[in-house]
Amino acid sequence: MLLELTSLQNPKIKAALKLNERRERNRSGLFAIEGYRELSRAVAGKVQLQTLFYCPQLFLGSNEPALIEQIGRQGTELIACHPNVFEKLSYRDRPDGLLGIGVQMKQTLQDLDRALTGVAHPFIIVAEAIEKPGNLGTILRSADAAGVDGVIVCDRCTDIYNPNVVRASVGTLFTLPVIEASSEETLNFLRAKQIRIAAATPSAKEMFTDAQLSESIAIAVGTEQLGLTKTWMDAADLQVRIPMHGVADSLNVATATTLLLYEVVRQRQVRA
Amino acid sequence: MLLELTSLQNPKIKAALKLNERRERNRSGLFAIEGYRELSRAVAGKVQLQTLFYCPQLFLGSNEPALIEQIGRQGTELIACHPNVFEKLSYRDRPDGLLGIGVQMKQTLQDLDRALTGVAHPFIIVAEAIEKPGNLGTILRSADAAGVDGVIVCDRCTDIYNPNVVRASVGTLFTLPVIEASSEETLNFLRAKQIRIAAATPSAKEMFTDAQLSESIAIAVGTEQLGLTKTWMDAADLQVRIPMHGVADSLNVATATTLLLYEVVRQRQVRA
Repeated sequence: MLLELTSLQNPKIKAALKLNERRERNRSGLFAIEGYRELSRAVAGKVQLQTLFYCPQLFLGSNEPALIEQIGRQGTELIACHPNVFEKLSYRDRPDGLLGIGVQMKQTLQDLDRALTGVAHPFIIVAEAIEKPGNLGTILRSADAAGVDGVIVCDRCTDIYNPNVVRASVGTLFTLPVIEASSEETLNFLRAKQIRIAAATPSAKEMFTDAQLSESIAIAVGTEQLGLTKTWMDAADLQVRIPMHGVADSLNVATATTLLLYEVVRQRQVRA
Repeated sequence: MLLELTSLQNPKIKAALKLNERRERNRSGLFAIEGYRELSRAVAGKVQLQTLFYCPQLFLGSNEPALIEQIGRQGTELIACHPNVFEKLSYRDRPDGLLGIGVQMKQTLQDLDRALTGVAHPFIIVAEAIEKPGNLGTILRSADAAGVDGVIVCDRCTDIYNPNVVRASVGTLFTLPVIEASSEETLNFLRAKQIRIAAATPSAKEMFTDAQLSESIAIAVGTEQLGLTKTWMDAADLQVRIPMHGVADSLNVATATTLLLYEVVRQRQVRA
């Protein structure tokens, strides 16, 4: 074991802290992954980890040493930190003593194409320009639960390597195919694969539970404030809405997306 | 208009700031309501407002003066604040210049009983011991969208007057019947009204989309970590689960609740 790092002036700590900034994530191609559960899923998803900072005084369970050993065997640099240092690195209120620096995965539509080999009816989400990292992360978590084949993040507002995306996704970012692409590339991809596009919009006539969603489908959702852009509304094969019975304007975008995803799951079960 | 308040030492500002603490909310019976949308819904829901702090320099739109005037006509004290003072009062990153102090509504099961007069098939949520205010608020927002008749918060962990509940609920807290009660009182109430209880639990055999949820129903959901207590599991007339296809353990509790609520909506539409 290395000596415990006690100084916030250490260049490795300073470099890790900088990854809070999107510009630095873009420049370096790195990002932070905090937490036992998230790091376990990063390992499962074969994310390359450059460095692992850890702080045994903050561990919540007894499985941490085994995970650290497993990560260390892959050539990741292991750095023990004093609690004061670790707490500065952490994005959380209650850090659990594990934070890794990973190499961005940068999956492409070609990777998704390969992942869809043998899938009779692809089930895709297109998330256009979601602004809040927590919402994008929650969409990923729901995508995992619903068993989607891939998530395409178009014309990104939030980058998928934002620490709050990692966190809200509880690490499903690493086990799902998640691709960043332009709307144009994405539309070409979906058309080539003959995947129908269902656009969620409050102005649609058809209720989401009445639409036919059980075959190849891409569920497209847009920004919190404005919904999908004209590009996606025009390109959609069908438009669906979620009924609203109350005083509030709309559901949270991640919640609405989950309803659409599970309607696909329900219709596929009924057909099966 | 009063003179603009510029000092954080003003006793009214100090009293408002104290409402951040649950103990002070309990003691005073008051709570804070921030934001144009939330205050509009508080007015619609006939919440009694004691004081309204406002800061014209922070207004985002042009409708604020009309709302302030409407609130003032009800006898609410209006206090203009300097931006520096208002920003200290605010719970938000981007305050919109409106924050009211309201009297807690303290609705009871008797009030809910009256609200259910003439409702053939009551549609209720029971939220047992939800820990995170944001989750409780999101459940309220979804309850509003799905058109539930009332929300019963049992054996509260989070009090419904927490500023993050108000915020995540986007003010639906004020327009929905939201009752705090013990589990025992709630069970007696539901039994007396012959409302069946559906418990959401990952251990259930029956899928939520296969269960019969279209008549009188109370959807019961439990804590983020542990789910419903034995009291509720034993009392439930049926247990249902949401299928999980991915690596992550579960959906967020508010997301899972929304899926259950909209399955009730779907089944009622199919029957209608």
